[in-house]
Amino acid sequence: MALIVQKFGGTSVGSVERIEAVAEKIISFRDRGDDVVVVVSAMSGETNRLTALAQEMMEQPIAREMDVLLSTGEQVTIALLSMALEKRGYGARSFTGGQVRILTDDAHTKARIREIDSTRIMAQLEQQNVVVVAGFQGVNEAGCITTLGRGGSDTTAVALAAALKADECQIYTDVKGVYTTDPRVVEEARLLKTVTFEEMLELASLGAKVLQIRSVEFAGKYKVPLRVLSSFEEGEGTLISFEGDEAMEDPSIAGIAFERDEAKLTVTGVPDVPGIAYNVIGPVSEAGIEVDVIVQNAAADGTNDITFTVKRGESERAKSILDNIARSLKAREVDLDTKICKVSLVGVGMRSHAGIASKMFKALAQESINIQIITTSEIKISVVIEEKYLELAVRALHSAFELGDPDGEHSSS
Amino acid sequence: MALIVQKFGGTSVGSVERIEAVAEKIISFRDRGDDVVVVVSAMSGETNRLTALAQEMMEQPIAREMDVLLSTGEQVTIALLSMALEKRGYGARSFTGGQVRILTDDAHTKARIREIDSTRIMAQLEQQNVVVVAGFQGVNEAGCITTLGRGGSDTTAVALAAALKADECQIYTDVKGVYTTDPRVVEEARLLKTVTFEEMLELASLGAKVLQIRSVEFAGKYKVPLRVLSSFEEGEGTLISFEGDEAMEDPSIAGIAFERDEAKLTVTGVPDVPGIAYNVIGPVSEAGIEVDVIVQNAAADGTNDITFTVKRGESERAKSILDNIARSLKAREVDLDTKICKVSLVGVGMRSHAGIASKMFKALAQESINIQIITTSEIKISVVIEEKYLELAVRALHSAFELGDPDGEHSSS
Repeated sequence: MALIVQKFGGTSVGSVERIEAVAEKIISFRDRGDDVVVVVSAMSGETNRLTALAQEMMEQPIAREMDVLLSTGEQVTIALLSMALEKRGYGARSFTGGQVRILTDDAHTKARIREIDSTRIMAQLEQQNVVVVAGFQGVNEAGCITTLGRGGSDTTAVALAAALKADECQIYTDVKGVYTTDPRVVEEARLLKTVTFEEMLELASLGAKVLQIRSVEFAGKYKVPLRVLSSFEEGEGTLISFEGDEAMEDPSIAGIAFERDEAKLTVTGVPDVPGIAYNVIGPVSEAGIEVDVIVQNAAADGTNDITFTVKRGESERAKSILDNIARSLKAREVDLDTKICKVSLVGVGMRSHAGIASKMFKALAQESINIQIITTSEIKISVVIEEKYLELAVRALHSAFELGDPDGEHSSS
Repeated sequence: MALIVQKFGGTSVGSVERIEAVAEKIISFRDRGDDVVVVVSAMSGETNRLTALAQEMMEQPIAREMDVLLSTGEQVTIALLSMALEKRGYGARSFTGGQVRILTDDAHTKARIREIDSTRIMAQLEQQNVVVVAGFQGVNEAGCITTLGRGGSDTTAVALAAALKADECQIYTDVKGVYTTDPRVVEEARLLKTVTFEEMLELASLGAKVLQIRSVEFAGKYKVPLRVLSSFEEGEGTLISFEGDEAMEDPSIAGIAFERDEAKLTVTGVPDVPGIAYNVIGPVSEAGIEVDVIVQNAAADGTNDITFTVKRGESERAKSILDNIARSLKAREVDLDTKICKVSLVGVGMRSHAGIASKMFKALAQESINIQIITTSEIKISVVIEEKYLELAVRALHSAFELGDPDGEHSSS
């Protein structure tokens, strides 16, 4: 007997038939005695349909009214899912974000949750009802409907789990969980039984996009045990757990993330005066271009080379900004390379264990892959390499760190 | 400068284009300085789409969840209409029934309005915003979404007009207003400039279906001046006004209503004992069959004939109930006639003026139309006649009472 918050996305509730399947899944938990709070998204396609209506009306729809419009999507799903449960003889009550009440700030279309009142939900759980909550939405202090932005249903689920002190927050998706790397690249990629929040953050932000980063951060902040699992297949999925568990101290690598869509910019021969990194990077950031890896090297002649990566689609724009800066700073030249990629080794274990980096570099060297940039953080090591080596590099690392080994620390489910 | 509540139905807001046209209409009132509160229905087709989804889920959808589902229809419209107004530079704010707050009883899918809080609306009007309210919906004391049943948007509009003490409640429809009779039957049918609440009630219930009876009753109770007019054509429409105005005391007939879909049942030779009307009619009503006109005649032999009309579709069922009753009461026989119709003359004027009835009977006699039943109330005289004479009777009466005469009391707009 536990209190479980479950979240089902748009694809999982995309038709009446699928909603019935979701009801069956919920019931399997009710039958073993769990209390269940369910968070659902709009049926797949619905948000797009509503957005199209709004854009037929005006190119930049008024944010306040956009929220009124879009929030109907989830409201349809909560009603249908509650019916599916009631039809099967299980008590169910639907609630919109405003009814719960999920209080947010005033930032329409991208609101942040401030507070959740758990009174009504707890009362329904006590009456043995499944509580079905519309994801993605809330109300501000003034009582206006707000939405949390796309993917906000994950955030709703985690926030509810935190407010209700749930035993687990289960996010149902179209994948079976978090893998050591992308199974399309490495056939032996293994489903992780557990992963830490920090690892998950790195894995999610580095390409293995399973969950909204924001919801993972939220879960970390409130220490909500989060599980990712499949709506369509059986399995325990991946539990995103707290650091500090015994098993987490092993010198293990959780997985390998990669980013294909990158470009590298280098400004060479920048005169060495204080603040040059800011002078070079600042204007790029201010133009709304997201800057990823940054490295600065002092050259022997007293000048500096600054290298950083951006999304490939924004690289031309970044280049023209840099050309101007280079002229005014009297730098030597600006070089753009769009044929690169980033591969990262992620794992909490590495912070306390030497030798991970050298093992990584050795594995790449053995495949004659030249490393252009290296950056490290507490729980990851990223390298920028030529794009054509991406698959080869990921496979070599996966094998070198024995991630496909079912006897490893993150054993397969 | 006035405070006006306007209601637009599903056809009037059936597409983005039509919603834009509604915005233009609202703006014409704003431009002359009026404060406007708008009540809208779901876009045409939307309620049917949602109902179909629910019925795919279960044949008899849970009422509570049906309300959560259906109320999204109007919510989409309020958002789009507010956008259309904002796009044109007119401030607008949308509100769901729950946000206003329109408090109802707990009768899901057929709730009744108990109370309306006008605070939020008045605050928005003071800020020069158009207030756009979702029709058809409210919340109960527990904060659950309720709906007022189909056509409930009219009721919402009238209730809001009453709560806000609006100068006028305008119901926009696909007809230009209330006519002396159905223009499809009588070409010279004239648009009434004014009609009393009582006349309207009779006209609406007797076939000239323009407004929901419930909303007209509501308007009468709270003395809300109600105007019916067309969304698509220009014109002043018909004002449904209070009795007591000078003009209302004229011996005028407002119009002629008719009901095609009737059947007549007669039980003859019922022994004359107290309570026989109840014994005959009671079981029919209890079977959920609506009984309309009822007449009872004592025959010379001390027995009674009881005649009444029902909807034609329910007449066979009523007949079989009556056959049983007739046996147990030892009545002579039960006769069913499905080839009849009802024609009614409606007008507040007739209550104080003799001669209306005889003029009516004379007009019908001149066309050799035999009258089978006559019933009268304060403001109407109804006759049941053979169905084949319907058009002839309506035209004869329309002409006899000079309803097409533009110099009549209810002059054309």
